[in-house]
This record gives sequence, structure tokens and C-alpha cells, in this order.
Amino acid sequence: MIVDFPTAALPYGVFSQEHRRPRLGVGVGTRIIDLDQAATTGRLTSVDPSLLTTGRLNELLAAGRPTWEALRSELLAKVPTGELGDGREQSGVNMHLAWEVADYVDFYSSRHHAENLGRLFRPNAKPLMPNWLHMPVGYHGRAGTVVVDGTPVVRPSGQHAVDGTIVFGPTNRLDIELEIGFVLGGPTVAGSPVQIGDAADHLFGVVMLNDWSARDIQAWEYQPLGPFLGKSFATSVSAWVLPLQALESVRVAGVEQTDPVPKDYLQSDTPWHLELQLEVWMRPAGTEEATKIAAVSSVEGLYWNAAQQLAHLTVNGASIREGDLFGTGTISGPEPEQAGSLIELSMGGTQPFQVGGQDRTFLNDGDEIILFGKAVTEHGDIPLGPVSGVIQPGRH
Amino acid sequence: MIVDFPTAALPYGVFSQEHRRPRLGVGVGTRIIDLDQAATTGRLTSVDPSLLTTGRLNELLAAGRPTWEALRSELLAKVPTGELGDGREQSGVNMHLAWEVADYVDFYSSRHHAENLGRLFRPNAKPLMPNWLHMPVGYHGRAGTVVVDGTPVVRPSGQHAVDGTIVFGPTNRLDIELEIGFVLGGPTVAGSPVQIGDAADHLFGVVMLNDWSARDIQAWEYQPLGPFLGKSFATSVSAWVLPLQALESVRVAGVEQTDPVPKDYLQSDTPWHLELQLEVWMRPAGTEEATKIAAVSSVEGLYWNAAQQLAHLTVNGASIREGDLFGTGTISGPEPEQAGSLIELSMGGTQPFQVGGQDRTFLNDGDEIILFGKAVTEHGDIPLGPVSGVIQPGRH
Repeated sequence: MIVDFPTAALPYGVFSQEHRRPRLGVGVGTRIIDLDQAATTGRLTSVDPSLLTTGRLNELLAAGRPTWEALRSELLAKVPTGELGDGREQSGVNMHLAWEVADYVDFYSSRHHAENLGRLFRPNAKPLMPNWLHMPVGYHGRAGTVVVDGTPVVRPSGQHAVDGTIVFGPTNRLDIELEIGFVLGGPTVAGSPVQIGDAADHLFGVVMLNDWSARDIQAWEYQPLGPFLGKSFATSVSAWVLPLQALESVRVAGVEQTDPVPKDYLQSDTPWHLELQLEVWMRPAGTEEATKIAAVSSVEGLYWNAAQQLAHLTVNGASIREGDLFGTGTISGPEPEQAGSLIELSMGGTQPFQVGGQDRTFLNDGDEIILFGKAVTEHGDIPLGPVSGVIQPGRH
Repeated sequence: MIVDFPTAALPYGVFSQEHRRPRLGVGVGTRIIDLDQAATTGRLTSVDPSLLTTGRLNELLAAGRPTWEALRSELLAKVPTGELGDGREQSGVNMHLAWEVADYVDFYSSRHHAENLGRLFRPNAKPLMPNWLHMPVGYHGRAGTVVVDGTPVVRPSGQHAVDGTIVFGPTNRLDIELEIGFVLGGPTVAGSPVQIGDAADHLFGVVMLNDWSARDIQAWEYQPLGPFLGKSFATSVSAWVLPLQALESVRVAGVEQTDPVPKDYLQSDTPWHLELQLEVWMRPAGTEEATKIAAVSSVEGLYWNAAQQLAHLTVNGASIREGDLFGTGTISGPEPEQAGSLIELSMGGTQPFQVGGQDRTFLNDGDEIILFGKAVTEHGDIPLGPVSGVIQPGRH
């Protein structure tokens, strides 16, 4: 999908043409500029060329924040002047997963979503678990099945309950989760937590993220060790990684946390929420046009921010590696049309919603989902790369 | 730790000497033979030398089962004759993590352990969740914190309850989990499950595994998304990876599964349990000698076997990558002294046990844990490499 990036965005991506190897690039307008070539021909001088010539972001991620800032400054200076060339139209290249994912963690940081899901999964209990307001609850997902925008998603099979009987077969409740993902770099050593004040040293950039979910498989398997096969078949991320520096002007404080006040390691005076406008679009199977089915602001949707999530993730001394990824968790607002998942939009599958003249609760084979995000600034919008996927029938 | 390997074992490991780069080797007696050198000098001809010269097992893992079998046949022929040289004494080399871990999954496949933990964590409910007898319940752990035998483990800090109040600080209930790990290869493509009959194409070898656990952190965080920081600080594996072919003679059927009968995808006529004798030893802080504190047979301890675990892990279409690792989950038997964790040995921390003249419930700083495993065959014992770790005080 073609995106028009202002020069204030300059997201990174990995592209290839025909049979050539994947190369690191930077997006501007509807074009992508070849950073690999710019590095090897000496037109980029702020960083070691070897960081830009591996066809993936990992080496740049490992280099750390001073290097990230030096490169971005040089790109902000040289891209607009045409010094790095005109690049290629996005329409003429293939986009790849921009980095090799090390570990993938998914949080659960939208209070509205956690309460909505709690009501659906545990109707006879309090919707929020006792720990939820004390910490950004999260878990590890499967890094090896993180795929790039546009990758088809095969409907997963698994055990699930149908009318009280446990059956094996394709999921009947295939869902999405609207999330923002954070790509990490600047590795740490085991035993040394990232202090919340140092979070910016490790938060390289953001992606749009769709954490596909099979709700019936998840409901049967998730106790006591959490989601597993209901999630691990696929997680889609945008092809573009937007550097965090591009979002400086939309950093805000977020909701005040007073009951309870978080532990010291989760406290920071720095505004760490990102004010992003997020949208879920669906193109139903057999139709040509996509329709917006939900929209939410990330600030309205999220209780915990990325710096808190990173501080929590490492507070036990767990080290991070370049290429680690974490998701915010599904972002939902208080209103029904602000839901970041279909299980919320359809009230647990009980109330179909209309899209393109069709009824839906969960996803049909052939349906396409596209997640969009953007920062609205006084100098214009800064889009995140979208993330899309079409559902393919399960294989048996 | 020096291990004396019979020629029927021939485990793989990665070693280095002084300042030289890590190299792939194979263990025999108390020595390690340099496979990197054997490959580059043309003395190993069954596989492409590039698979053996990267200082890690991943390339061999990717090559698949016919390659694994060809190499093992050649090693079984050439190691005993001395054709590959005498190698170096283990005492003179450093051992490294033998492969780069892709995704790490931990199962929960010991019925005795699951029931013991269920009673401790949920005293007012049935110890086994309704799903437990239907599927090998599991979850994803942190691949980036898998460390090799001998790596010190820093005591993790985190949120946990003390007398009903949530505090932040070093864990008071640092525990171990006695497990066997399986190292995977022969990658698959997304959407295509591994059929249980094809499990041997992907199960390369076994390691001893200690899934260190902070029980108080785990108890507070684990609902509803499962264990996270209570586990993610460290998982230790043996330096030696024993090829599955070395354990052919100890493959047995395991416990009959009749109530319920598992779904088709979990059924196999092939005996897939491994009869391994496992032991937990502890060397208390300030002492010189380690003492055996628990012993259990893996067959007695495990309800689900490795082929079932692999079939389950991929039945939703999740792809596997070379270097994926999964653990069996803590292996405990029915008797108190067959417990694979301290929380079981100490009855939830209420009944200290004696070791080296000291009382213990959970681990003190300075304590060392060593897990041993072996297959007892009519031709002698085949040891798994041990896995050990010393607890270091937490950093603040």
C-alpha cells in the first residue's frame, strides 16, 4: 500500500526490486530512498556504512541512540535537498519485514479493552484483575510468526468449545487487535533493568501492529499460563518503522495514575504517551472497497505508556536485544465504535455489525483488515505505515 | 563441569580456547573434538563444511534430518578410530550456548507438578484446569535470556505481595524447575502444522533445562496472561545438546491417555517418551559440597511427550525456525522427594528441607543448583550435559 510521507516522518523500511537482495531505505513522499547505496557511495557519512548495508535494521538498532540521532539528523538535512537521490516509487518495489524480531512481548495496557474482555471471558468476576492497575500486565508472544504488512493469514485450527463440547477444527472466532508496536535497540546486560528515565535510549521506533487472535482457541487454552495458540499463528506489523523522534510533538502525559500510584520504577515526569489517531478498516470478502469500522485515539485508549512498559519488562533484570518488539495491547476507547477488536465491536459475537452491506461478528475467509495510524501535528499529519492482511482458508 | 561421554552419546557443543572464536565440537570421553577443523580440513565429508563452521548449531539445525543422520553416522564411524583427532580436554576450554535460540516455549506436562502447583496457587479450586488433560498446555518464554550452564543468575526484583501488601523488591521465593529441553530444526512454513508422525524430522536433540522462577512475582502477575517477569530473567540450558538418535533405546510409550482420549492430531503409535533419570543437586551458599535433593524419572513425571508437544505447538499453523527450543515443564513424580521444584519440596515454602546442614525453602544468594540427567541403557549410561547456576544478589 502506497503511503505519502512528509519529510518530518522519514520512516525506515526494507525493500527489494525484482530479483535483487533486500535493501534498507527511507520513505519520503511516495518514494523510498536507498540507504544501502547512499552508505556505500559515501553520501551518508554520519554512521558506519556497515550499519546500513545488511538488508535489515538490526545493526542500526544495536548501535544505540546517539547513532540513531546522528543518522536522522543527516537524513533530515540531505533527503529534502535531493543529495541522496530521488529514490524509487513505492509502487515499484516489494516491502519486507524491516528487522529480524528478537523477542516479542504483548502488553494489555488499554483499560477499556481489559475491562471489555474481562466481562466477556469472566462474566461472573470483576472485569479487571487485582494486578492490572499496579503494573502493565504482559506476556511473551511468538517472534517467529511476526510478518510484514500484506502477508496473508491462514485461518488457524485448534481445540475449542462448540456448544459445550471440545472439538478440533478451524477457529470460528478469528479476530484482530489494533495495537502500536515498539521496536527496541541499544541492548542491555542481564541483571540490569532499564531505568524509566533511560527509556528513550532503547525505544527506536513505532509500527502499526495487528495481533490476530482466535478467540475460541484462546478461551479454552488460556488458563493458567495465558494465550498461546490463539495468538501464535501470526502477528502483522507495518513495513515502515517510524523513528520515535518523528513523534516528539505528539508526546503527552496521558491519564493520571493515582489509585494506586504506581511503584517508583514506573514513575516518570516525562510525557510518554503518543497522541496517535488509529483506525480499523475492513474490506469484506468478495468486495472491492474497505470501510472504516472503528477509530480511537491511542491516548484515550492506553493507561500505561511505552516507557512504563519497557521499565516493567526489564525490572527483573531481563536483558533486551536489538530487534525486540513489544505491542501496547489492543487499544480501545470507552465507546463501542472505539473498539480495537471485533469481539468488542460485536459484543462477544452476539451483535453483528454491518460492513459493506454484509453482517460480521468475526472474520470470514477472504476478509481483509487494514489498520491505519497517524499523528496530527500543526505542520501536517505524520502517517504510520499501515498494516493489512487477508484471511485465507485453513489447511487440513 | 566435566562430563565423561561414551561414544554412544556424541553430544554437540560449542567451545573456545583463550581468545579464539567459538567453534562447534562433539564430546567423547572427557574431551571435545573440533568439528569446525575436521570440516575445513576435509576429514568430515558427509555434510557441507559451511554447516559446521559458524560457531553455532543453527546452520546444522536448518539443514534437516537427513543431514543430521548423515553427520551422526560419520561421527559414530570416525570418532572412535581417532580419525578426527584426539580433541581437547573439556577442562581446558570454555563452553558457550550451543545455538542461537529462536523462540522458546515452555510446556506444563507433568501431571504431578500441575496438580501440586494448582493446589498451591489456587487452593480453593480443582488443581487441574479443565483443559489440562486435553492438550499439552504451554506458553512462550523469553528466548533472549536463555543462558548456558554455569552462567550466574542475578536474583530478580519485582512486585509481589508481602503480608497482603504489594511491595517492590528482590524476590523472596526464588525457585528452580527441573526440565528437559528440545532443540528444533528443519523449519516449516506458516500455515502448515507438523504432523505428529513427522515429529522426528524436527526434534534435533535434548538439553537439560532449569526454568528459574520467582514464585512471588509469578503469583501476583500471572492472571490472566500467564507467567512473565517471574520467569523471563533467566532460563539455563546445558552446554551439550544430545542428538535424539542417542536416546533411541530409551524411548517408551508413557502413561496411557484414555480419559479423555486426545484429539487425532495428538495421537501416535510411536513410543515418544524418553526414559531419563533426572536429579536435582544443591550446593548451599558457603559450602563446598553439593547434595542430591530430588530425583525423578521423566517417564513417571510426564503425561505429554515431545511429539505431542510439537504437534500441539504447530497445529494452529505456527511455523518453527531452526533454533526453536521448548521445555517439558517441571518434571515431578508422585512422591515428595520426586519434586522438580523447591516450591513442591518445601510444600509451598511452609516446610523447610535440610541440605548440607542448612534449612532451605527457596534459594539463598550464593546457592548453586545443578541438574543432572542420564539414560540408563544395557550398554551403559548416556549422560545429558548438566546445567548449573549460582544465585547472585539482586542489583538496585
